[in-house]
Amino acid sequence: WPNSPRSLAPSIPEIWLLLFQMVLLRKRSELDEISLWPLPQKFQSSAVAFKLSPARFQIVQAKQSSAGPSCSILENAFRLETFSQLVYEDDYGVNNINKTDISDFPRFAHRGILLDSSRHFLPLKVILANLEAMAMNKFNVFHWHIVDDHSFPYMSRTFPELSQKGAYHPFTHVYTPSDVKMVIEFARMRGIRVIPEFDTPGHTESWGNGIKDLLTPCYSDSSPSGAFGPVNPILNSSYDFMTQFFKEISTVFPDAYIHLGGDEVDFSCWESNPDIQRFMVQQGFGTDYSKLESFYIQRLLDIVAATKKGYMVWQEVFDNGVKLKADTQIHVWKGRPQYQDEMAQVTAAGFNALLSTPWYLNRISYGQDWVNIYKADPQNFTGTDAQKKLVIGGEACLWGEYVDATNLTPRLWPRASAVAERLWSDKSVTDVDNAYNRLVQHRCRMVKRGIPAEPLFVGHCRQEYKGL
Amino acid sequence: WPNSPRSLAPSIPEIWLLLFQMVLLRKRSELDEISLWPLPQKFQSSAVAFKLSPARFQIVQAKQSSAGPSCSILENAFRLETFSQLVYEDDYGVNNINKTDISDFPRFAHRGILLDSSRHFLPLKVILANLEAMAMNKFNVFHWHIVDDHSFPYMSRTFPELSQKGAYHPFTHVYTPSDVKMVIEFARMRGIRVIPEFDTPGHTESWGNGIKDLLTPCYSDSSPSGAFGPVNPILNSSYDFMTQFFKEISTVFPDAYIHLGGDEVDFSCWESNPDIQRFMVQQGFGTDYSKLESFYIQRLLDIVAATKKGYMVWQEVFDNGVKLKADTQIHVWKGRPQYQDEMAQVTAAGFNALLSTPWYLNRISYGQDWVNIYKADPQNFTGTDAQKKLVIGGEACLWGEYVDATNLTPRLWPRASAVAERLWSDKSVTDVDNAYNRLVQHRCRMVKRGIPAEPLFVGHCRQEYKGL
Repeated sequence: WPNSPRSLAPSIPEIWLLLFQMVLLRKRSELDEISLWPLPQKFQSSAVAFKLSPARFQIVQAKQSSAGPSCSILENAFRLETFSQLVYEDDYGVNNINKTDISDFPRFAHRGILLDSSRHFLPLKVILANLEAMAMNKFNVFHWHIVDDHSFPYMSRTFPELSQKGAYHPFTHVYTPSDVKMVIEFARMRGIRVIPEFDTPGHTESWGNGIKDLLTPCYSDSSPSGAFGPVNPILNSSYDFMTQFFKEISTVFPDAYIHLGGDEVDFSCWESNPDIQRFMVQQGFGTDYSKLESFYIQRLLDIVAATKKGYMVWQEVFDNGVKLKADTQIHVWKGRPQYQDEMAQVTAAGFNALLSTPWYLNRISYGQDWVNIYKADPQNFTGTDAQKKLVIGGEACLWGEYVDATNLTPRLWPRASAVAERLWSDKSVTDVDNAYNRLVQHRCRMVKRGIPAEPLFVGHCRQEYKGL
Repeated sequence: WPNSPRSLAPSIPEIWLLLFQMVLLRKRSELDEISLWPLPQKFQSSAVAFKLSPARFQIVQAKQSSAGPSCSILENAFRLETFSQLVYEDDYGVNNINKTDISDFPRFAHRGILLDSSRHFLPLKVILANLEAMAMNKFNVFHWHIVDDHSFPYMSRTFPELSQKGAYHPFTHVYTPSDVKMVIEFARMRGIRVIPEFDTPGHTESWGNGIKDLLTPCYSDSSPSGAFGPVNPILNSSYDFMTQFFKEISTVFPDAYIHLGGDEVDFSCWESNPDIQRFMVQQGFGTDYSKLESFYIQRLLDIVAATKKGYMVWQEVFDNGVKLKADTQIHVWKGRPQYQDEMAQVTAAGFNALLSTPWYLNRISYGQDWVNIYKADPQNFTGTDAQKKLVIGGEACLWGEYVDATNLTPRLWPRASAVAERLWSDKSVTDVDNAYNRLVQHRCRMVKRGIPAEPLFVGHCRQEYKGL
């Protein structure tokens, strides 16, 4: 836009840390139509408004920018979510924008969403659409809970039998290598990391279909019952498998972190198995099966560390006293609604913590449950400043027991948007009424882009959802 | 299908009362793949299976049929929902059907779904898609809660200002006369009646925008506060308006019944108004404002009776002792979860009753809440056989406070399917495990037809939902 001072510069080389100042072309009054979500850290709007000309509009970098014009992610980011939210259509259909100074950066570095593609298979289209919605809400981590007890849709090059025998269907209900690549690239262009979760030793029933002897045979009346339990931790073959498997995973997923799960290990099958019982005696574990669990996890962590990846684990791994690398990230999910003690303990031990306890969005109730989601704060626990700094963020989780392509998106949005603002905006941004007014408009913005985000309450969008 | 005895005959002239016997062309074994929903009254399947040839398949009427070949609804009904559920694809993609004798009729005559297009506007496409889903579940009444406090999307020929000033938007958020016609015809071809609800004297805030003096001015400190309450029951102009309005409605909607609402009248505004107070004294009503409500409703019922329509009303109209025509249908919705007393009282007074109390499907909770929906029975109250016979059915209600086009369909289905079977199948059909297995498959059948019915629990459909 000619004849006007302008600058748009990432003043430090962090994609989300943006300072942009805009002086544009025309005055107006309907300031209330502008509703930013999540709210920027510093934001000063004025009544000076300007028209946008589609033909002449461009975004340029400031001279002091450290990023070159060849930075493709930044070029792509120039679609800039915040900027687009400042634009409004007037009654004549002309795009307007007010003179606005924004200095913005996220409160937390890790702002994630967990989707579960095992309890129900999620078609690629659904995942991509939700990555788009994540970008609109400045989420930057897609935690892909890709496999679990019920199905193994990840198609492995090294062990193709995992999905051949473990997926709901070997052809129609799998993620091929090119599917996975597409998800990663689609996310990358939107500033979103993809962290896959391969949860062991529990939650692995579907793994056992393809890999013989991987799971522990359960016993009943001193003979095998035919059922299987967690990964068998006493066989070398289990660790050989994990070594090869995570070597592949570390190559397929470029992110520096892998989520290794480690939650909800059921000991009853281990307890029933005479070989495991003998091993417990040999190792001097007594009858404390959490020691056996730690034995397994310890070896797994060494295997994954050898791939040069960092790891995230569910809180049980910390709770059970497993020896962890200093950069391990502990994912707090238990203790609804009291997560404070765990956050305090994890950070007191010097580990990075991220919170999901109050953000299990699969749990639904009637009415405006986004308010409690919005009120939860990851730093709301008793601890030192140093402890608070170890909180790297949080994740909204949408577990898949009752969710698939038919209802995932409206169940996730705009409830996840409440988490987005908590993780992005300043700690002081807590006014629920103000948030309601902005979120209503933000939700309509998502609907306008084809995302079926459900309504907060009675009302309407200028443009209603067109799909079904 | 040649060379085989066949008959398909509605043995009495009721569209849903069907006796058909089929002898078809090939044997198979996977009987478990056939899951009928709702379960027919009598059903005998055999292992004798036959192939269906798309080119040669036809349905013919038996010689004893009383319906002629010119009956368009019956011709259309030959798509027959039950029949299509008997057809299964084998591993070679061939359509098969087993020899099956079905003698079927509904337990209750009134099997309805209420959708609310006022709290949120529902695009026509959403309504039509749900009529399709209703037909798949043998619902036969669409209760269209078309207007309410929040918006008035019904475009009236007589009073166009009602939607011009009362809809969320006068052009994009309205149902034109041709929209309404399309809904009625689309429903008719699927054996579904459309019963519109125009609720008065409460729930009418949006009516007041277009019709001057229709609503009661509320007072505060002996002067008008600017707010308005229910329809003003002391002005002749209110009754003149209702006479003209319902004359139009009785023409536009061909069904023999209109739902007149009558629920949740808030007396505080009436109480504040000095003119109303004076009228109360004149009429000798004392301070019992339910007498004023009855005064209004009584006159309204006379107005509607003059159009030759029957009427349905919410239970308050009965509870308040309004004098009702003998064919009035009382819609029971209060007293969650105890609806038994009200059903007993309504039927003891000799009125037809229909139940919605346990079927407010807008109310959601985490997990499999379809089970409680399924267990509720409209005849589960203490009363004589004659009283039980006065129960004509029930309706699943999806109120719109938190529901619009983005989330309506997965929230309604397959939970409404549980209501469908309760209203159609024999009283003895109550086995939840059996219902679960059939409903899982019925739900996949809906998904296959493009209806985003949400999953009951972990699992998959052979063909997942393709939309978003």
